[in-house]
Amino acid sequence: MLRSCAARLRTLGALRGPPGGRRLPGSEPRPALRSFSSEEVILRDYSVPNPSWNKDLRLLFDQFMKKCEDGSWKRLPSYKRIPAEKIQNFKTHLLDPKLMKEEQMSQTQLFTRSFDDGLGFEYVMFYSDVEKRMVCLFQGGPYLEGPPGFVHGGAIATMIDTTVGMCALMAGGVVMTANLNINYKRPIPLCSAVTINSQLDKVEGRKFFVSCNVQSVDEKTLYSEATNAEVEANLGFVSGSSWLQIPNFQHQDSLPLRDDQHRSA
Amino acid sequence: MLRSCAARLRTLGALRGPPGGRRLPGSEPRPALRSFSSEEVILRDYSVPNPSWNKDLRLLFDQFMKKCEDGSWKRLPSYKRIPAEKIQNFKTHLLDPKLMKEEQMSQTQLFTRSFDDGLGFEYVMFYSDVEKRMVCLFQGGPYLEGPPGFVHGGAIATMIDTTVGMCALMAGGVVMTANLNINYKRPIPLCSAVTINSQLDKVEGRKFFVSCNVQSVDEKTLYSEATNAEVEANLGFVSGSSWLQIPNFQHQDSLPLRDDQHRSA
Repeated sequence: MLRSCAARLRTLGALRGPPGGRRLPGSEPRPALRSFSSEEVILRDYSVPNPSWNKDLRLLFDQFMKKCEDGSWKRLPSYKRIPAEKIQNFKTHLLDPKLMKEEQMSQTQLFTRSFDDGLGFEYVMFYSDVEKRMVCLFQGGPYLEGPPGFVHGGAIATMIDTTVGMCALMAGGVVMTANLNINYKRPIPLCSAVTINSQLDKVEGRKFFVSCNVQSVDEKTLYSEATNAEVEANLGFVSGSSWLQIPNFQHQDSLPLRDDQHRSA
Repeated sequence: MLRSCAARLRTLGALRGPPGGRRLPGSEPRPALRSFSSEEVILRDYSVPNPSWNKDLRLLFDQFMKKCEDGSWKRLPSYKRIPAEKIQNFKTHLLDPKLMKEEQMSQTQLFTRSFDDGLGFEYVMFYSDVEKRMVCLFQGGPYLEGPPGFVHGGAIATMIDTTVGMCALMAGGVVMTANLNINYKRPIPLCSAVTINSQLDKVEGRKFFVSCNVQSVDEKTLYSEATNAEVEANLGFVSGSSWLQIPNFQHQDSLPLRDDQHRSA
């Protein structure tokens, strides 16, 4: 699905660096301000520590930043929105103006970045290209509640979906989640840090199979796991889209899209 | 999981009616105010139309309200939070005070009710006890974006999880989602209305198997489906909990909890 197009743009945009200079990945961001320009909102990298991060999350972050020093791992920046000019073509082609008013189109935000600091999804992802592993460090805030005091099963599914999707995207370019199969073992306490570990298991043509588990920081508790999450490369949306460049776009073969992969009219 | 305990409490609380009178289910609620008492926040029923609901969603709502007239269907009210006194025991038993500060505990909100009107999850559920069917009418707002212009796969998983969980809860009381297996067929446009249809297929001991599909309003487009979502009755959390009453608590037999169903210490 195009979820990962958007994620890719947000990430690529970050790697080129925002105008006006760039913060070092490990450094503290500007304090969250209640009023700021839309430019700052778009360009703020959310995958760095903020005051809401608990001790465990910060510790894990530091450990992974250390792994980045020799280049074997890299931290993925993360943004709330794609700059308007980059997606204008895309939205014009795909959006139905009868559904979304102009005002709503300008309000859209990445779901996982739609909460104020500390209230929703606090996370950062690290990727190892050699191992084809994506690790997401995640802390779920009080607005993600399901059972009293615990993270909603749908919020867990959201982070698993995001992690496996990014894992496949890094390996294969534009992707779409076709299947998610999640086993919930134990509830995750709100405001606790967990690691979401995903691994690319195999590639069959345009299909990428990724497994994933969600563990406590000390690795003693398995909270959830996703087996054989299937993510598919989606060629149909790329061809004809002039704004999208995927440097590492790799497919073992080119297959025509199935009928059910075309967006319904 | 206890997600459904919380949902049940929120629903039962509603059926008894809030103090100070009760709005008719089909009537327009008070306009959303930016400043209001916490009592009003807790007691506001979110499963009634508000100005953000599009034409399709309102039409579907009216159709289902009509089905409720003979009692064969009922609308489920939905709240942002459980009143503090009802969950105090629960939270004291289960929450780790090292993880959540007092301030954070008072900030918790049901994930699917954590956005301002029109920005996130707009939905209402209707249940048929005779058919054991739960239908959720859902409209995803601009803060649920995944691919530009479309609903995030995790937001879809959230609504599927919520719907199948409520379906099983109505049939069997306190439940926990054990497995979710979702096939994503087509992306759902932001701000469009869809129906999430779930059906209780079978009960095996404490396991409830529910199937579910997500369709367009005209039923011509299948967006996603969940096959054999497994929801389990969780007796361990009920015994010893004095605050919880489940009027229709039914189990075909009583089995001891497996080790992996106990919350890890």
